[in-house]
Amino acid sequence: MGSSFGRLLQISTFGESHGGGVGVVIDGCPPRLEISEVEIQYELDRRKPGQSRIVTPRKENDTCEIISGVFEGKTLGTPIAILVRNQDARSQDYNEMWSKFRPSHADATYEAKYGIRNPNGGGRASARETIGRVAAGAIAKKILQGVAGVEIVGYVKKIKHLEAVVNHDTVTLEDVESNIVRCPDAHCAEKMIALIDEIRKEQDSIGGIVEVVARNVPKGLGEPVFDKLEADLAKAMMSLPASKGFEIGSGFDGTLLTGSEHNDEYYIDDTGNIRTTTNRSGGIQGGISNGENIIIRVAFKPTATIGKEQRTVTKDGQETVLAAKGRHDPCVLPRAVPMVEAMMALVLCDHLLRYQGQCGTSDRFFP
Amino acid sequence: MGSSFGRLLQISTFGESHGGGVGVVIDGCPPRLEISEVEIQYELDRRKPGQSRIVTPRKENDTCEIISGVFEGKTLGTPIAILVRNQDARSQDYNEMWSKFRPSHADATYEAKYGIRNPNGGGRASARETIGRVAAGAIAKKILQGVAGVEIVGYVKKIKHLEAVVNHDTVTLEDVESNIVRCPDAHCAEKMIALIDEIRKEQDSIGGIVEVVARNVPKGLGEPVFDKLEADLAKAMMSLPASKGFEIGSGFDGTLLTGSEHNDEYYIDDTGNIRTTTNRSGGIQGGISNGENIIIRVAFKPTATIGKEQRTVTKDGQETVLAAKGRHDPCVLPRAVPMVEAMMALVLCDHLLRYQGQCGTSDRFFP
Amino acid sequence: MGSSFGRLLQISTFGESHGGGVGVVIDGCPPRLEISEVEIQYELDRRKPGQSRIVTPRKENDTCEIISGVFEGKTLGTPIAILVRNQDARSQDYNEMWSKFRPSHADATYEAKYGIRNPNGGGRASARETIGRVAAGAIAKKILQGVAGVEIVGYVKKIKHLEAVVNHDTVTLEDVESNIVRCPDAHCAEKMIALIDEIRKEQDSIGGIVEVVARNVPKGLGEPVFDKLEADLAKAMMSLPASKGFEIGSGFDGTLLTGSEHNDEYYIDDTGNIRTTTNRSGGIQGGISNGENIIIRVAFKPTATIGKEQRTVTKDGQETVLAAKGRHDPCVLPRAVPMVEAMMALVLCDHLLRYQGQCGTSDRFFP
Amino acid sequence: MGSSFGRLLQISTFGESHGGGVGVVIDGCPPRLEISEVEIQYELDRRKPGQSRIVTPRKENDTCEIISGVFEGKTLGTPIAILVRNQDARSQDYNEMWSKFRPSHADATYEAKYGIRNPNGGGRASARETIGRVAAGAIAKKILQGVAGVEIVGYVKKIKHLEAVVNHDTVTLEDVESNIVRCPDAHCAEKMIALIDEIRKEQDSIGGIVEVVARNVPKGLGEPVFDKLEADLAKAMMSLPASKGFEIGSGFDGTLLTGSEHNDEYYIDDTGNIRTTTNRSGGIQGGISNGENIIIRVAFKPTATIGKEQRTVTKDGQETVLAAKGRHDPCVLPRAVPMVEAMMALVLCDHLLRYQGQCGTSDRFFP
Repeated sequence: MGSSFGRLLQISTFGESHGGGVGVVIDGCPPRLEISEVEIQYELDRRKPGQSRIVTPRKENDTCEIISGVFEGKTLGTPIAILVRNQDARSQDYNEMWSKFRPSHADATYEAKYGIRNPNGGGRASARETIGRVAAGAIAKKILQGVAGVEIVGYVKKIKHLEAVVNHDTVTLEDVESNIVRCPDAHCAEKMIALIDEIRKEQDSIGGIVEVVARNVPKGLGEPVFDKLEADLAKAMMSLPASKGFEIGSGFDGTLLTGSEHNDEYYIDDTGNIRTTTNRSGGIQGGISNGENIIIRVAFKPTATIGKEQRTVTKDGQETVLAAKGRHDPCVLPRAVPMVEAMMALVLCDHLLRYQGQCGTSDRFFP
Repeated sequence: MGSSFGRLLQISTFGESHGGGVGVVIDGCPPRLEISEVEIQYELDRRKPGQSRIVTPRKENDTCEIISGVFEGKTLGTPIAILVRNQDARSQDYNEMWSKFRPSHADATYEAKYGIRNPNGGGRASARETIGRVAAGAIAKKILQGVAGVEIVGYVKKIKHLEAVVNHDTVTLEDVESNIVRCPDAHCAEKMIALIDEIRKEQDSIGGIVEVVARNVPKGLGEPVFDKLEADLAKAMMSLPASKGFEIGSGFDGTLLTGSEHNDEYYIDDTGNIRTTTNRSGGIQGGISNGENIIIRVAFKPTATIGKEQRTVTKDGQETVLAAKGRHDPCVLPRAVPMVEAMMALVLCDHLLRYQGQCGTSDRFFP
Repeated sequence: MGSSFGRLLQISTFGESHGGGVGVVIDGCPPRLEISEVEIQYELDRRKPGQSRIVTPRKENDTCEIISGVFEGKTLGTPIAILVRNQDARSQDYNEMWSKFRPSHADATYEAKYGIRNPNGGGRASARETIGRVAAGAIAKKILQGVAGVEIVGYVKKIKHLEAVVNHDTVTLEDVESNIVRCPDAHCAEKMIALIDEIRKEQDSIGGIVEVVARNVPKGLGEPVFDKLEADLAKAMMSLPASKGFEIGSGFDGTLLTGSEHNDEYYIDDTGNIRTTTNRSGGIQGGISNGENIIIRVAFKPTATIGKEQRTVTKDGQETVLAAKGRHDPCVLPRAVPMVEAMMALVLCDHLLRYQGQCGTSDRFFP
Repeated sequence: MGSSFGRLLQISTFGESHGGGVGVVIDGCPPRLEISEVEIQYELDRRKPGQSRIVTPRKENDTCEIISGVFEGKTLGTPIAILVRNQDARSQDYNEMWSKFRPSHADATYEAKYGIRNPNGGGRASARETIGRVAAGAIAKKILQGVAGVEIVGYVKKIKHLEAVVNHDTVTLEDVESNIVRCPDAHCAEKMIALIDEIRKEQDSIGGIVEVVARNVPKGLGEPVFDKLEADLAKAMMSLPASKGFEIGSGFDGTLLTGSEHNDEYYIDDTGNIRTTTNRSGGIQGGISNGENIIIRVAFKPTATIGKEQRTVTKDGQETVLAAKGRHDPCVLPRAVPMVEAMMALVLCDHLLRYQGQCGTSDRFFP
């Protein structure tokens, strides 16, 4: 239990790394939205393995099929099921893992919890599971754009110590897609790619930080006190594989400022709109969007799977060593970008519908 | 919508800063647990205002009443309602706020979302709302301790740049409660208190980091892929007022390590148990507890309410200035400690019951 | 777990028959709705004991207090907590029940499930729990009326074999309240009252059927396939104490017709609206409201508590006899009417908000 | 929104009558349960069209594929996705329905709600959607049997006025499957089959009542006050296509008895167990199972699709007539039996896990 997400736009993902396939059921999508497999495939291709030399060489086309919920190119309002078959399942790479637990992986904890696991690849803990999220996120993005012009742009902000300079107001998808590491700071991107190349050769791995900005988010999204917008975003991001931290706006660095330095003062802009002069809040105050850019960051640890030999234990309780043979990413960040964007889109879209449900009703009727 | 939390142990909080009171309904509590108002009051007293010179002087006894769900000192398995009346409601302090939005507060966003708000105190956005959480957390702690011997200890890890040294394995509630800033590092605590005193005199505020450790957590808690244990913890913490960031284990600093440096290698301990030599995972791998200490950190921004004059706008769209008169905390951290502990306890307890539901059934019947 | 109901307008009830009180937390109410304790009290008074000679003589004013969520007479959009204190708790009436299980009551099953129960009155299984539902229903009714002009009228359709004749299009609250049995057929009402009087003197009890009609329900409410409108109504009604059956439209009698006799043919009315010539569907087709009157019926069994001696067993497993001494209703139907109306209102209101969430969004944006 | 069901064992169905296929995702299944496609297929075959001369001749093998969640014949504890492809989709049969609404079908209400629909077959409102439920129900049955020896037997109790005599204690699946109408009373079954044959020739349809008994249900299942066992059963059954009524135990007929006639008196059986002498409660008291047989009945209306000409309207608001050409069942009852059993199994299994979650924990630790 735990594979569903969202209250009004609810997704349920399924599937393991090796087996019949992976996918998602999306329930609660507004009807009459135009959507095609092509649009979904675009996002899946950003996520798929084998897309460049700095990601895992596993070969998967990740071709999606819409099974239900769309008729003649438009959503029906009924559940949209999307299926992606597994292809390049080299189970033999994982023979050693049938008995040995990979350090900092989910092998041992799945075994402890369920008393059983699919030992080929990561099973359910594989990042292949995020295919369903990314597919659903493509639809959520389109709803958000159609309804409110919301733009979501994610990118690699840091790889290890290398930090990019990015303008939240102007960064575009094109900037992000202009290089294989998905960092819109071209100069920094080069260094990042070189570093990943180097680490890959060392049979080691590195991590970093993905930042995502959402622009044009309507004021009023977020449901205090538990379903605050940043709380649901935090859950969404911390449910991604390999994430270790989440922050919004000023985040951890904000703890070094005083209140008078940190507070976002208000002013009235040319159109009479209430705005803030700074955005240390990251677009959310009191759990509710304030119309400024929503800006969050997610920390991803270095990939757990590495070629170097490590100490570990067997399922039977024997100490041993393991050097991973499976294909894996030296750095998950480039492929994490579309995942983070998808989760951002799903949270915002769910809250847009929730806002519409509670407050849209009253907008029309209660003075 | 959004004031309920948890799937099997579900809490629903209610109440505003000024008005009839605040409280919580706890549904799903296991029956026959011994619990008393005294035990709940102990935690509420750790949270209440006026407890020391470094917190807000607002006078509230925060005396709790158990309305239902407990009979002759034991839980009935039915909903436990707990009510705390509001007392020291000096609404006149807030007259200015009827028209002026406090910077980095929820005034403007509540107004934008609901088109109405209770302008006395923070209304629903007040930290008084957390009374319900802390009361419920007291019960969750007792379940966890009774069922599995789980210990939860939270403390102030950092105030601004001042960082405490704390041993995760040995820190106790007594250590934490030994000083008014709730930092178990006595030397650092003195400096923290001095700094808060100084900031208070400057009519300013500061923030910091609360760390919480949960010991003896059974292996197997957490429900991938969306209800991973760290994901639910992140949501829980980011739903607290003033929180800006969340991390587990190595967190953001973990992004500076390589995989070979970061991975937690396994070994077999003297009792034949699978353990990790390090704990950069923070007690959770693949979204499931692994039996090591669960260690998380939450960043709290400097209190938004300050005595210094700031630029802001009125509800009617006029630019103006505001210097807060209401009583407020120069630093929320000391009072945030019991809140963070409560949310940790609620998440762990909910997942303990969920584990019992799905896997406890199979433990008895499926080989 | 199980004391919450609704997805967007969610209520959580609490409280036992004897103890601090009973009440409800209502989360998700649209903001800026005008509501007062007077309006809620009106519905509670229809439900309260001691209101006439044919109901239980227990004396309870059932005076409600709004604890939170309402400011200056308008809803804030935050949780509305309503509390009713218990007053006339004559626990001594129940001494015998500390050890003896009342036949067809919940005593034995609560004991089996929880291993503990509050043996005074029905505890949580008491009909006092429905106070929270009726209070919340008063608010839901007002939303429905304000947003869509929905009218909900419930009444006693049958007492034992006595069946009333009622016109669904014209029956009013005034008709229902014109007599103490709440049957709008005045002639039949007299007979019903006489029958209840007779049964009461015999220390026995009787049951019957409540029918409720909802008029002016917008087309489009209901969420296939599991949250079909009739499915949620069925759950709502079967969660009421003493209910044994539910039907919509033609119901069980509809199984005696052929398809050609049963189908509701369509026509176009004077305003160009699609209507049905008959309404065997009861206002719902395929789980979605079609704009016709929604008509449901709920069967209530004869009150389980009777003064006549019955065979039963003790908690310790001894066979014995019991003749109830507690005050009780000879027939629950008159007091069940406001409960059934409340549950109808809560379901319709929840689905109105849900419709608004999913389809209201698209109405504005997707052609 | 509305295609998910269950709290701990949650199913999410997807798919339309015509399109890529139909199926289900089952989340929360206990791990290590042995399950195969053969066992699921057995139940699907009981539901499938074309199985006898008294059901629709549409040809569908309804062959299921387990996509995920099962490894080497055992459940992993992760989501189980099951897919059934659509085959015999003769869309041309439905050309007329692109413009004309079928009386008492969901065509008009789906159009009103979503502003769009798949006009081939019933789309999402087709009974093909129940394939996912029946597949999930096969798994739920196996859990219930493995954990507690629960037996669920459903059968046709009435067709129109023809009522079967059935012994709740002894009726078996074999009895039910011994004839094509699924009525264990062989004499009555013959009459029912003859009646359906006759109605089919008249291009008309008939309805009836399915009864289902669950034996060996553990005491203690059901979560008052809203998730009472009968409330969740009612919702489950009323969410099935064509259902118009639900009753438990004495049901509507119970309203004709007095309390002294209706109450189930207690006694102690030979094994010291508390039992009831009668079972008018239908195995549930106060929303909680009492260990007696759970007995419910579901009323199904005559199939809406009939060959006879009926008055209707077009999507464009013109009055017209329609005589259905699509293949359809003259009586849904024989195929409804496995659906009703499946929903019973899903509700009981969900509540078994929920019981285990809340009370199983306390069983072990709180005296």
